[in-house]
Amino acid sequence: MRRIAIALVHHPILDAQNAVVTGALTNMDVHDLARSARTYGCSDYFIVHPVDAQRELAARIVDHWTNGSSAKRIPDRKDALAVVRAVPRLEDAKAALGDGVEVWVTAARDLGRATSFPDARAALAKDGGPVLLVFGTGWGLAPEITDRADVVLAPIVGVGPWNHLSVRAACAIALDRLCAPA
Amino acid sequence: MRRIAIALVHHPILDAQNAVVTGALTNMDVHDLARSARTYGCSDYFIVHPVDAQRELAARIVDHWTNGSSAKRIPDRKDALAVVRAVPRLEDAKAALGDGVEVWVTAARDLGRATSFPDARAALAKDGGPVLLVFGTGWGLAPEITDRADVVLAPIVGVGPWNHLSVRAACAIALDRLCAPA
Repeated sequence: MRRIAIALVHHPILDAQNAVVTGALTNMDVHDLARSARTYGCSDYFIVHPVDAQRELAARIVDHWTNGSSAKRIPDRKDALAVVRAVPRLEDAKAALGDGVEVWVTAARDLGRATSFPDARAALAKDGGPVLLVFGTGWGLAPEITDRADVVLAPIVGVGPWNHLSVRAACAIALDRLCAPA
Repeated sequence: MRRIAIALVHHPILDAQNAVVTGALTNMDVHDLARSARTYGCSDYFIVHPVDAQRELAARIVDHWTNGSSAKRIPDRKDALAVVRAVPRLEDAKAALGDGVEVWVTAARDLGRATSFPDARAALAKDGGPVLLVFGTGWGLAPEITDRADVVLAPIVGVGPWNHLSVRAACAIALDRLCAPA
């Protein structure tokens, strides 16, 4: 099994009008994605945000739950938040994972060159470089990230055309499909 | 395929010390579980709360997103929130689904008579009465609910013993495992 890490990107992302924007940090995203990452054995969870004050906020949340009063109150959460770190750009997350890293992006819309989850799962189970699984906030990752990705995962489809899952749900489902024990 | 609905229970649930308590409504739970329910074709999402003011709060959130200003700003969310209603007790959710309803509960801990997700998926695909898939807030559903359940689903297990997923993640994964197209 290859090393897998996740990243949650706050810039560059799209808004509802397809403009490239920067999203605000959401506290619940820090917690939920960390808990899913920890459950499915991800080595790291990178919060990608270009704004210093937003990265500092992420670091304060992590510190509160790993060293602060909440670390004593809910020790399980400490194990999850320990995988989180905030970086300014997606390139920094890639660099942290070292040589041979592949960027796999997720999108709710069809980007035209999708790899199915079963195929991606098989690729992850082989030997190889680390995989950085990337999620976008807002209305999803901007083309400058998806166009350069090594793998574009197929959209998660439910029982009809409506597929506006939260990023917290989409990340949980993607990790379950890719990493859950058979 | 049988009709499936979800319920999120705020009482009776357990706290970290295994005491039976009542949990506060979390705004993100209203949204995320509604979006997952809508994606996977659930007919209803029942927010179970015994406190009148908390059910009124749930109704106000739903109204804001289905009739209020946010219904215009993010119309997709309207479709999701439309499946939500708040009821005082789990019995009310069962009654709303009519005769032959089965209660399927989820738990992060092993309750001793677990049905695997593949078996549950097969049972859901057959003809039969409606299924009410029940999630607990806090540290999970109290025994008075799990003991009476028709089906106890196997805990969602990741790559190690740590499985403290958020209820938003657990619901998304459970619905994907049970209802995603093959």
